[in-house]
Formats: sequence, structure tokens, C-alpha cells
Amino acid sequence: MVAADTQPSSRRPGGRTARTRAAVRDATLAELAAHGYAGLTVEAVAERSGVHRTTVYRRWGGVDGLIVDALDLAGTDDWQPPDTGTFAGDCGALAEEVRRSFADPVEGPSAAAVFEAAFRSPPAAEALRGFLADRHARSEVVVERAMTRGEVPAGTDAGAVVRAVVAPLYHRLFITREVLDAEAAARAAAAAVAATSAGVFSSKG
Amino acid sequence: MVAADTQPSSRRPGGRTARTRAAVRDATLAELAAHGYAGLTVEAVAERSGVHRTTVYRRWGGVDGLIVDALDLAGTDDWQPPDTGTFAGDCGALAEEVRRSFADPVEGPSAAAVFEAAFRSPPAAEALRGFLADRHARSEVVVERAMTRGEVPAGTDAGAVVRAVVAPLYHRLFITREVLDAEAAARAAAAAVAATSAGVFSSKG
Repeated sequence: MVAADTQPSSRRPGGRTARTRAAVRDATLAELAAHGYAGLTVEAVAERSGVHRTTVYRRWGGVDGLIVDALDLAGTDDWQPPDTGTFAGDCGALAEEVRRSFADPVEGPSAAAVFEAAFRSPPAAEALRGFLADRHARSEVVVERAMTRGEVPAGTDAGAVVRAVVAPLYHRLFITREVLDAEAAARAAAAAVAATSAGVFSSKG
Repeated sequence: MVAADTQPSSRRPGGRTARTRAAVRDATLAELAAHGYAGLTVEAVAERSGVHRTTVYRRWGGVDGLIVDALDLAGTDDWQPPDTGTFAGDCGALAEEVRRSFADPVEGPSAAAVFEAAFRSPPAAEALRGFLADRHARSEVVVERAMTRGEVPAGTDAGAVVRAVVAPLYHRLFITREVLDAEAAARAAAAAVAATSAGVFSSKG
């Protein structure tokens, strides 16, 4: 799936670079979704994106460079976690958002292929680690707001809470490969909220 | 996957077949640890195990059959979860046991390769799902004992508790690829215990 505004022959350099990068990113994710890491080739990404093969080789180096850049580019968006007004509401909405993204017929398979790639490619693993660390850091505001409202103990380790919310989801998706329905996502969030209230994550001064 | 009692040429069916199967299992896991799923070949497993290549092909079919049988064989052991006398103790010991197994220099890499294989091979994914479901089912006795002792609410969903204990460990190991130390394992167990006490997993009558 190539973005609609992909215009490889544009005369405006800035825009052109950004569009080329997005087109290659889209093609990389689509190829990953269709064929997995083992089936990802520069040739297919070039073909699908409409960017010349030699350009892809020169700028991205190879398949690992394509995956790394797709993750780096994904990390430049303006995503923010839900803000529902309550700690429990935010955690539940965050879990549900993760669940939905992996259930998405387009986003889900390419994301799964990125996780597979992380098993096989150290650069992909490093890029994925960076992307997720950034997502977790952005999500910490959910816990900070709850501390400000007095909903959770002072000194709660926000990063630990965020990971507790989403870990059971990834466990079902990629480890046990069990169905991840809305109820399971809600229960993961509720468990993290209960553990936070009980002070399990109050490890910081 | 070829059934374990397929013995085309053996004269002493039980012992020889079992030893051959174990040797092939050991070789499969060692090859997976060394080269990953992409590098797993029947030839290398035959060479390492000392079992003839044509025998391996005939009985296991190929690399997927080798992984499936290694998991099926792993599931025939007599593993039982820790029994420390308390719910919190059992959950902590279970988490620590999982952490140690993946930190093991031999067991860890081959287990990681099996999880990688599950991304790429539907038969491997199905065998891993079965293996883990059996491990989780065996671990439920930890929760059953705690209910008998009155440590956790009646009607607690034991399977959900077990998954809550281990999910954060797998999340660190294979998703965020963050360090999984003893403290992180202990905190995962403590969070599951707190959520259980709070009634989050009390979904059954």
C-alpha cells in the first residue's frame, strides 16, 4: 500500500525526499506483511514503491536498512496516549488501542513481521527497541497525570506501569498466540491498575 | 510430524527409538541455537545427531517436523511448578524459574529460536502453542492451592493468573528486548499477586 501522495518525479526536493521515504516505508511494510522478513527484497520494495532499485540500495543499503528506517520514520509521528480523565480509563484505552492496531488487517501483519525481523536482524531489533522505548516514554504521561490527581501512589515507576499494561497483550499475540479480545485487553489494564494501587510499582523515591 | 512410535528399522523398538528421538531433538535445539530457524537443515541435524539423513527425512519430514517433535518431546517431561507454601512464594519462584531458563547459555538461545520459528512456520507455532498451554495448565495448581488455603478469592481464573505472572517476562525477552533481571521477574510476580488479591482475575463463579 503506497501512500496516495507518492510522487517520485516531483521537482520540489524537500517534499520529494520525504515522499520517497514514505513510499519506501509503505512498500517495506506491505512487503513484510505479505512475505515476512525472509521474503523481503530490495527489488520488490523498489517495484512496489516506484523508487529505482539503485536508489533504494544507495540510500537504504538493504533489507535491514529498510526495516530500520520504517521504524525510525514511525517514531517521528505525533502519537500521544489516551487522555480519558482517569487512570483506569487511560490504561484501558491504551490496551484497547494496542489490541486494535494488531487486529487491523493492514497494520497487524506488517507489525508482526517487524517483530519476526527483530529475531533475525540485530539492526531491526535495535530499531524496534528504540521505537518501543519511545512509545513507552510517551505513555508515561498517563501515570504522571494519575499521580498529579492523587490516583496512584507518589513515586510510582511510570515506565513499569506502562509495560505492565501492554505486556499481557504482546504475550498473547506473539508468545502463546492466543486470541486477544477486548475482554483480555481490559483485564490486562485492570491488573496493572490494581498492582499500581497496591504499590507494586512504587520503587522510586 | 511423524509419530514417535514409527520404527521402520529398529530391532529393539523402545530404547533405540527413544534414544534416536532424543538425539535428534538435542541436535535440533543445538542447531537452532547456533543458526536460528533460517539456518536449520536436516543435513546438519543428521550430522550432529549421528542419525542417517534419510532416516531423519523419513521420520521427521523436514525442519518443521524436527521443531514440532522437539516441542512435543519437551512436553512429555514431568515438570511441575514450584511449591513453596505460599501463593506469593510460588508466583515469585515460577517467574524466577522462567527468567533463569532463558538466561541459560544453552537453553536460552534454542528457546529463542523456537519462538522465532513460530513466526515463520505454522506447524511450529501450533506446537509451541500446545507446549505453552500445557505448561500453563500444569502451573494452575499454584492458584488452586492458594484458593484452598484461602489466600486468593474463590473463583479466581487460574490460567489468567499464571499468564499474568509470566507475560511481563516474555515481553521483556522477546518484544522490548530489555534486560530481564531478578528484580523485574519478582515485580512481575508481585503485580500478578496484587491483581489477584484485588479480584481482577475472579471471573469465574
